[in-house]
Amino acid sequence: MSILEPSELAHVPFVSVENMMRLVNDVGAEAFMRELADYIEADFKRWPEFDKIARVASHSREGVIELMPVADTAHYGFKYVNGHPKNTREGYQTVTAFGVFSSVATGYPLLFTEMTVLTALRTAATSALVGRYLAPKNATTMALIGNGAQCEFQALAFRALCGIETVRLYDVDPAATKKAEANLRAVGFDVTACRTSQAAVEGAQIITTCTADKQYATILTDNMVGAGIHINAIGGDCPGKTELQRDILLRSDIFVEFPPQTRIEGEIQQLDEDHPVTELWQVMRGEADGRKGDAQITLFDSVGFAIEDFSALRFVLEKTAGTDYCVQLDLLADPDDPRDLFGMLQRAGAEAA
Amino acid sequence: MSILEPSELAHVPFVSVENMMRLVNDVGAEAFMRELADYIEADFKRWPEFDKIARVASHSREGVIELMPVADTAHYGFKYVNGHPKNTREGYQTVTAFGVFSSVATGYPLLFTEMTVLTALRTAATSALVGRYLAPKNATTMALIGNGAQCEFQALAFRALCGIETVRLYDVDPAATKKAEANLRAVGFDVTACRTSQAAVEGAQIITTCTADKQYATILTDNMVGAGIHINAIGGDCPGKTELQRDILLRSDIFVEFPPQTRIEGEIQQLDEDHPVTELWQVMRGEADGRKGDAQITLFDSVGFAIEDFSALRFVLEKTAGTDYCVQLDLLADPDDPRDLFGMLQRAGAEAA
Repeated sequence: MSILEPSELAHVPFVSVENMMRLVNDVGAEAFMRELADYIEADFKRWPEFDKIARVASHSREGVIELMPVADTAHYGFKYVNGHPKNTREGYQTVTAFGVFSSVATGYPLLFTEMTVLTALRTAATSALVGRYLAPKNATTMALIGNGAQCEFQALAFRALCGIETVRLYDVDPAATKKAEANLRAVGFDVTACRTSQAAVEGAQIITTCTADKQYATILTDNMVGAGIHINAIGGDCPGKTELQRDILLRSDIFVEFPPQTRIEGEIQQLDEDHPVTELWQVMRGEADGRKGDAQITLFDSVGFAIEDFSALRFVLEKTAGTDYCVQLDLLADPDDPRDLFGMLQRAGAEAA
Repeated sequence: MSILEPSELAHVPFVSVENMMRLVNDVGAEAFMRELADYIEADFKRWPEFDKIARVASHSREGVIELMPVADTAHYGFKYVNGHPKNTREGYQTVTAFGVFSSVATGYPLLFTEMTVLTALRTAATSALVGRYLAPKNATTMALIGNGAQCEFQALAFRALCGIETVRLYDVDPAATKKAEANLRAVGFDVTACRTSQAAVEGAQIITTCTADKQYATILTDNMVGAGIHINAIGGDCPGKTELQRDILLRSDIFVEFPPQTRIEGEIQQLDEDHPVTELWQVMRGEADGRKGDAQITLFDSVGFAIEDFSALRFVLEKTAGTDYCVQLDLLADPDDPRDLFGMLQRAGAEAA
């Protein structure tokens, strides 16, 4: 074998955006999120097994770049993700992401994958999974406030996991609402485009907020939230970035992913540090209560946690291993003698000459 | 343009191991490290401009996986790197790495590159750069204790930057020494293979230790270090992993990269938390003393810091931009309307059907 044809150990399977979209379309977006939610639920149920830290964020005036690592005893995963709300003005995505899933035993990557599409799916799958524990039974209608890139995925996931068939849309930008309306009609939703957020929440049992501005905003005011509502708050996920009026938080039972991260980034950054919250993994294990009654307001203060990405990476690895959804990338050096990296470099030069 | 032909915004330039080796060989390994050292020195001299943290490590019984992010106001870089000393027994590398260099303004990656080869070069370039400030003038001979993957790169860098022509090798494994001896003879070094570490340090003005065991080891004992020596300690770079007898540290003036990280990982984990150390960036800026006299023992307690990788990424980006050293990777989703990620997914499915 030529030096210039790297051996198998040097290769890492790579799933491109094109191949991720092909995989999702082959499985079907709703089926994909239903299966993915099972992976997420399984990992939440073994929460204590993970080595967890709050994500590592690098903030700038324009946005944030984050690394989200987590490991169990067998695997290590991390995601790179940015959040730049102004990006869309120049044709860039607000959020792009990619990730790596590795063997803890060797430290070698097993998978390198796009995660822009995958993050949209895992975020929605997590929301709907949580909705299954917290939303009122027999909910049929969801308000979607913020009609950007995440909006349709939320609708699809809540249909797949919670039976939501009717959505009521609102965005400060009517063009965004129009886009979401067309997309969601095309896949069979009963859609109402609303001219105010007040109108959007009328008759909804679930309110999803997924706006992107990096600031303290008041997407939802206290008077808009009636008894029995489940709030799925996606967009408040950065220090200084919230969506809900503080009074709503005081009337709600609040559920979170990883408290050390949510206290910094979530809606609850508006509250005292010791304000009681419930950890979702405990609800899923039956160790804490989810929804307790018809009048209760439940709030999922979602910020997105590394274990959800770990589950998504684990899922994609199993779906793509040995298939043509991935191509082999020459990412790792693999000298014949692992200590002879220099010799490999020298021989590559000699062969090229 | 077809949906299945991603646009330019979706692409990230990727430098494979093969292309990195081609680049290094085209430039020449010594010239490459000399140029790279200039980039590292330039970045060390603007140290306060960087947003710095100690690397984020995930430890297991077998090894460690680390993420090393750092940013200035224009760029963000991070490296993924593992350290698994037992890997070589199964034909894997102890250390493999890859990295990403991004725009702070958009969060978009500008470069994705292998860094196994690049890390070997940047580690050696950093050592030799530091050697230029700390090693005795007119040093000609270096002892190299530990003859693994890093060994030859150290020799080459010290020749390129400090004029070292003679090396004295020792490793607990004679096969490693034999490998390094052959490689270094072939590129013109005066090489002596030694049967003990005591023999290796005889007549050397610089002692480089680069062993890989993950434990407290005593590669160098106090009696082996005479007046005027510069010690370049590479291998002690993990909690619980050191190479030098504590007494040596007490006789040396100790120079470090980023104290919050070196206190945890370096040789100085053996010392009190307030033991005085000098930061190298201050030496390079002329704000702190380097070598002060002929009898002084100087110690570079190297653990490897993210800014060195940032410099290496910056260097490789400039060397490879617009060349065939990189290929375009379909890593980022790029819908026509950035808010219409779902529509992109739907249209990809329709096109494939």
